[in-house]
Amino acid sequence: MYDFLPAIPSIQDDTFTQHVQQLLDHKTKPVGSLGVLERLALRVATILGQDQPLLQDPQMVIFAADHGLAARGVSAYPTDVTWQMVENFLAGGAAVSVLSRTNGIHLNIVDCGVARDIARREQDPEDKLPKPGEPRLWRRKVAYGTQDSSVGPAMTDAECRLAIQNGMALVKKLPGNALLLGEMGIGNTSCASLLLARLANIDVASVSGMGTGLDAEGVRRKVEVLRAVLDLHAGVTEPLAVLAAMGGLEVATMVGAVLQAAAESRVILVDGFITSAAVLVASRLCPAVLERCVYAHRSGERGHTLMLLELGAEPLLDWHMRLGEGSGAATAWPLLVAACAVLREMASFSTAGVSVKSA
Amino acid sequence: MYDFLPAIPSIQDDTFTQHVQQLLDHKTKPVGSLGVLERLALRVATILGQDQPLLQDPQMVIFAADHGLAARGVSAYPTDVTWQMVENFLAGGAAVSVLSRTNGIHLNIVDCGVARDIARREQDPEDKLPKPGEPRLWRRKVAYGTQDSSVGPAMTDAECRLAIQNGMALVKKLPGNALLLGEMGIGNTSCASLLLARLANIDVASVSGMGTGLDAEGVRRKVEVLRAVLDLHAGVTEPLAVLAAMGGLEVATMVGAVLQAAAESRVILVDGFITSAAVLVASRLCPAVLERCVYAHRSGERGHTLMLLELGAEPLLDWHMRLGEGSGAATAWPLLVAACAVLREMASFSTAGVSVKSA
Repeated sequence: MYDFLPAIPSIQDDTFTQHVQQLLDHKTKPVGSLGVLERLALRVATILGQDQPLLQDPQMVIFAADHGLAARGVSAYPTDVTWQMVENFLAGGAAVSVLSRTNGIHLNIVDCGVARDIARREQDPEDKLPKPGEPRLWRRKVAYGTQDSSVGPAMTDAECRLAIQNGMALVKKLPGNALLLGEMGIGNTSCASLLLARLANIDVASVSGMGTGLDAEGVRRKVEVLRAVLDLHAGVTEPLAVLAAMGGLEVATMVGAVLQAAAESRVILVDGFITSAAVLVASRLCPAVLERCVYAHRSGERGHTLMLLELGAEPLLDWHMRLGEGSGAATAWPLLVAACAVLREMASFSTAGVSVKSA
Repeated sequence: MYDFLPAIPSIQDDTFTQHVQQLLDHKTKPVGSLGVLERLALRVATILGQDQPLLQDPQMVIFAADHGLAARGVSAYPTDVTWQMVENFLAGGAAVSVLSRTNGIHLNIVDCGVARDIARREQDPEDKLPKPGEPRLWRRKVAYGTQDSSVGPAMTDAECRLAIQNGMALVKKLPGNALLLGEMGIGNTSCASLLLARLANIDVASVSGMGTGLDAEGVRRKVEVLRAVLDLHAGVTEPLAVLAAMGGLEVATMVGAVLQAAAESRVILVDGFITSAAVLVASRLCPAVLERCVYAHRSGERGHTLMLLELGAEPLLDWHMRLGEGSGAATAWPLLVAACAVLREMASFSTAGVSVKSA
């Protein structure tokens, strides 16, 4: 049933890892003294298969869609905020717009299933790549939002598969060697909590938080709704079926994008809770996707710490960010660029004529 | 006795703080959802006194000097590494060279007291500002290294004061509104441990670590040496006298630079353990300098966590970096740039036409 998905081999290669580690250890610094920056350099080098890694044309992709479940009051904001924020991305005023522009990241917004049509002209893939931060809109709407997963499956199997294929096809069109994950969809922290609860077999109360700003009573009501959803889909455990039953169109499209990016050995920079949920689903389909991921931050959203544990992830920032959009990934991006520069440009002890450790 | 130091008033201003906080709270995001990025934006805005903060011509300054105490075997590397690394900075091959170039930071190297003369032509302050990452050398050598603080004071009072004045005069010459602190000096983690132990009244064993790479036995011997130094200077507690007795020429010059930068309301981006020690000394002379500081990272050097507590600091990265040079500050710099962009460029709910929270 997974034969429409790309093959993703493991990139574990001890010889290459040792080679890059040796390059790092001969740079003019005490061994290991750049800490996480060195580990990040090794990671990116391994993903790209380059011992002098160069990140090019980074593509932030914001997957946007609405959620039938939002009608159950699981979010602090009304559903209209999804399309309004898409317009804000297109107008350049959202956090992720500003951060992408500032950090030289190309910005793509994908309508995967927003409840309202977005007026703007679609991106022609033949168009010249715009400047970093200038938004491109991609129409990949599978439906005007998902169905309410508290009364039935969120998507049909066909919709879920179409969304995944859309994500795969989109990434094929994107230049560069890095994919930054972003998302927008009122109600999608609920969706991420459901996916994590079911796929990792964790009680949903442990992974349900305030989202965009629920109070304690709001979170309590949200957990009740999510428990009911999980009960309704009690027998569903196969990853694609879980995604269709309780996922979102933006998450499904993102799953396809993650799989395709992994297959092409792009660096995948994961943002927060919702994008991690897409990575979790993708990893249950093809475990080797995890080898291509870098985790931008530990989100302030309650479930994210358990999510990161489940993914075996070491996040770069611990900043209590909980906005989504890709804001954490866009913020962390320069850290990856710096890590690559260390490998490419630092002198070694021998070339710089610096004495080695005396002990 | 502090009358040669600049006056540094407090910049606490509740009205301005509330004004900037309100700007942040009306941006198109849930209140507080950018976490540390928002707090950083508020901090930089407060330091610059701008509600639309714009960081300009960031100046990394690497203060370099040698330490008489290094002869006591407190470092894993020979003293020659100090001048060799200065040459490496000038040649563009060190970590801080690479990171400054990558992140658009201007690079200054100051010979405050290196044991050997550096051949390169000194920077003419009238020269055009070179491109980011291209090094400028400043000769401010007070002596060919400090004296051995285990047998007497490291500096005379006159040398200490001259170094501080050098730091003040240098910052006056630098363009821009941000000072990034870096340092180079074999033996200077010992010096930082001594300053922290005495000024914060902490047992020196709690704040002494591996430096550039001592093993456990090496750290044990280092602590013995440091205890003897502290015993020798047992009665010395006044900050300037402590600095002269147990400090370094690069630390003293940095103290002057920090004071001047604070007086000019520049953003001071602090690197790791040694630069924090300079900030600690400066703050004991003029407490309001702390209001102008941003802390790049929590270092892997053992004493840094207690140092950060003493300074009331919240570091941006927790990456186990322990190289010094300013490498952590250069790595973290784009995070400050991003924080300012959020304040300057993000849309507000009203201008973007986005619905507000329903609850």
